Amino acid sequence: MAQTVTISEISKYNGQEVTIQGWLYNMRSSGKLRFLLVRDGSATIQCVVFKNDVSEEIFTNVDKLTQESSLRVTGKVAEDKRSPLGYELQVRDVDIVQIAEEYPISLKEHGVDFLMDHRHLWLRSRLQHAVMLVRHEVIRAAREFFDNRGFVLVDSPIFTPNAAEGTTTLFGTDYFGSKAYLTQSGQLYAEASAMAFGKVYCFGPTFRAEKSKTRRHLTEFWMIEPEAAYYDLNDDMKLAEDFVSHLVQSVVKNRRRELETLERDISKLEHIKPPFPRIHYNEAAEMVKKENPEFKVGDDFGGADETIVSEKFDKPVIIHHYPAAIKAFYMKRDPQEPQSALAMDIIAPEGYGEIIGGSQREDDYDTLLQRIKEHNLPEADFKWYLDLRKYGSVPHSGFGLGIERTVGWICGTKHVRETIPYPRLMQRIYP
Amino acid sequence: MAQTVTISEISKYNGQEVTIQGWLYNMRSSGKLRFLLVRDGSATIQCVVFKNDVSEEIFTNVDKLTQESSLRVTGKVAEDKRSPLGYELQVRDVDIVQIAEEYPISLKEHGVDFLMDHRHLWLRSRLQHAVMLVRHEVIRAAREFFDNRGFVLVDSPIFTPNAAEGTTTLFGTDYFGSKAYLTQSGQLYAEASAMAFGKVYCFGPTFRAEKSKTRRHLTEFWMIEPEAAYYDLNDDMKLAEDFVSHLVQSVVKNRRRELETLERDISKLEHIKPPFPRIHYNEAAEMVKKENPEFKVGDDFGGADETIVSEKFDKPVIIHHYPAAIKAFYMKRDPQEPQSALAMDIIAPEGYGEIIGGSQREDDYDTLLQRIKEHNLPEADFKWYLDLRKYGSVPHSGFGLGIERTVGWICGTKHVRETIPYPRLMQRIYP
Repeated sequence: MAQTVTISEISKYNGQEVTIQGWLYNMRSSGKLRFLLVRDGSATIQCVVFKNDVSEEIFTNVDKLTQESSLRVTGKVAEDKRSPLGYELQVRDVDIVQIAEEYPISLKEHGVDFLMDHRHLWLRSRLQHAVMLVRHEVIRAAREFFDNRGFVLVDSPIFTPNAAEGTTTLFGTDYFGSKAYLTQSGQLYAEASAMAFGKVYCFGPTFRAEKSKTRRHLTEFWMIEPEAAYYDLNDDMKLAEDFVSHLVQSVVKNRRRELETLERDISKLEHIKPPFPRIHYNEAAEMVKKENPEFKVGDDFGGADETIVSEKFDKPVIIHHYPAAIKAFYMKRDPQEPQSALAMDIIAPEGYGEIIGGSQREDDYDTLLQRIKEHNLPEADFKWYLDLRKYGSVPHSGFGLGIERTVGWICGTKHVRETIPYPRLMQRIYP
Repeated sequence: MAQTVTISEISKYNGQEVTIQGWLYNMRSSGKLRFLLVRDGSATIQCVVFKNDVSEEIFTNVDKLTQESSLRVTGKVAEDKRSPLGYELQVRDVDIVQIAEEYPISLKEHGVDFLMDHRHLWLRSRLQHAVMLVRHEVIRAAREFFDNRGFVLVDSPIFTPNAAEGTTTLFGTDYFGSKAYLTQSGQLYAEASAMAFGKVYCFGPTFRAEKSKTRRHLTEFWMIEPEAAYYDLNDDMKLAEDFVSHLVQSVVKNRRRELETLERDISKLEHIKPPFPRIHYNEAAEMVKKENPEFKVGDDFGGADETIVSEKFDKPVIIHHYPAAIKAFYMKRDPQEPQSALAMDIIAPEGYGEIIGGSQREDDYDTLLQRIKEHNLPEADFKWYLDLRKYGSVPHSGFGLGIERTVGWICGTKHVRETIPYPRLMQRIYP
């Protein structure tokens, strides 16, 4: 019996007979030849059935195969310079597992709603498959980056009793008679963890009940959030640009075939290396004002404003020192410039928007308590958070990177709904 | 200025002057000497302050230091064979960042409720710190195992419209006017993903609203769930025992110091290697009956029953072929033994209970539809799941491993609440 192998490692078996197990992606016929394009999830290979090489029963059966039928194919691996994979299979035997019913997703165009309703099948398509392999690599490289730098994974909880930035965009649940909310960010807990482990990260799903239908919004999305004791804003910016560069270069190196499948301009990714341009909020605001006369200095940037700034650069751009008034209560202010927060955002190139938001955190007990009161936050819920400023408070900083926007930028995918396996949007929780 | 380094890599700087940044864990005095035990999250080091080596101001300040005060210490790294780390710091300078208020967790014993209320601080303690470093290694090794075997990470959604195993233990949320539930398992989606990617895993938080206060239950816990197309129950058991062994051996190799801190009997972990004993449900049931006369063959095993079986072995034990009647609707039955499901659980040694549950899945459309009806599940919600049996159905299998129980077993921690950074229990969502 031939050895069962996966298609992605077929090059190791050149000249040998092997069995692959998968699904029929496409087929074409030419006289005594049948060309089966077979996928097994790792890659796709052309399997050539020559009538004289197989039994009559097998050749007849092959013609019954429909798109997505499941099958085992045995044959000899042969080099084929014309194929993207570099190899084809010269078939000796075909074992049909199931003849699929008429497959709903054909090679013709389908509407987005139809495809989203069939997301469980759409993931089998060439482009969606490639995006998910890039996503896998981004997540793998993200963990590798922090693990190799001595950051400890300390995951923050999903259920939280409090609402760090107001309850309007929170999903709530009954928690044995009391109320719990789903986390919007693991940061506050990551701060506590950093005081115990020095350098930490958390990485999990986060939730926002935003009534927003833009191409950048999901109700459920994944975020990785490092936090480090004794880091100031400069350390934080350095860490962030090293991190983003590592993600991009890992995909360029390990998932080049998928980027080619997606017809991504890889040259635009190859030079994403530190340092990134760093500009003060005031400078960015001036850039925006020139092209958007309605923008007022002091405002937060909208998506279109971010694009105005990012278009000036061919790398991600770091904007720092935002006005404290438009930033979260926990951000430390610059003693030299008290109206500005020691905050930074990173805007991806080519109009893909904000991928990172971070800051140095307020580390003075009295100042933080005052901010909590100013924001009308329930002081009792933040007792533990205030404790961090009582028992060995230290300067500390961190940031959050949104996985879906990052994958969207790297893949060149316009809508984030295609960057997560089973997207959850305001009007979609199926499948 | 001396280079700032982390304590865990101090051996690289033997004989050199360095600065460490951290917190005071403990201090003792002896004449002209002060011995500061300083932690920075990566490890703990003894810093020796000799009165004649530092200024009078520094020596006076050192005596003001309280537990958990934050500080930077500069000094020369010197070998010290008596310390667990192997090095100490001969101090030249101490820079106090903050004198901590009286720290609530002293070295005396505290009650569990008090410690849980101060979980954000308790994580700084020696034993809790060690457990979390083991947890980090378990999660790292788990991803490494599947990444290196060609499994693609395809995360399942947290929000689901349906309730695979009944709504009584589900957390629900208002989802823009309709109802969504928090996932109890990513498996059903992982099956869809396996049809697209061949071999996949998902890894995220899962939720159970169980009114249970045992030492094995959390309302929020992390689960890793591989799923593979063309895998049968035997392939699944082989994968599971390789996986569990990899987790244990990675911790033994990379976190030995933490296991020693926890006073874990490492010899009991070192021989956890494949193959694991495999026993049929009927055989396990006979074992249980002998010691628990109330047990009836056909029943599911309780925690105490699992312990009866696991005590017979010094490795995890795989129990397979459970009665179909006590298992989930999606499990395939054995054609040779139609009352039994092609299911398997892995029970950890030493009474730590079930750490893995898995099965081969039903792959026949009509049979699965019938099971869904028998279980009174809403057919419309499972349309996408049934689709997987229409379009290229294949034999497939998978399992789920609970991270917290696995960490508990490896660390020798009796209660799972100490195996997750911020535990969520029936009566606890703070901090």
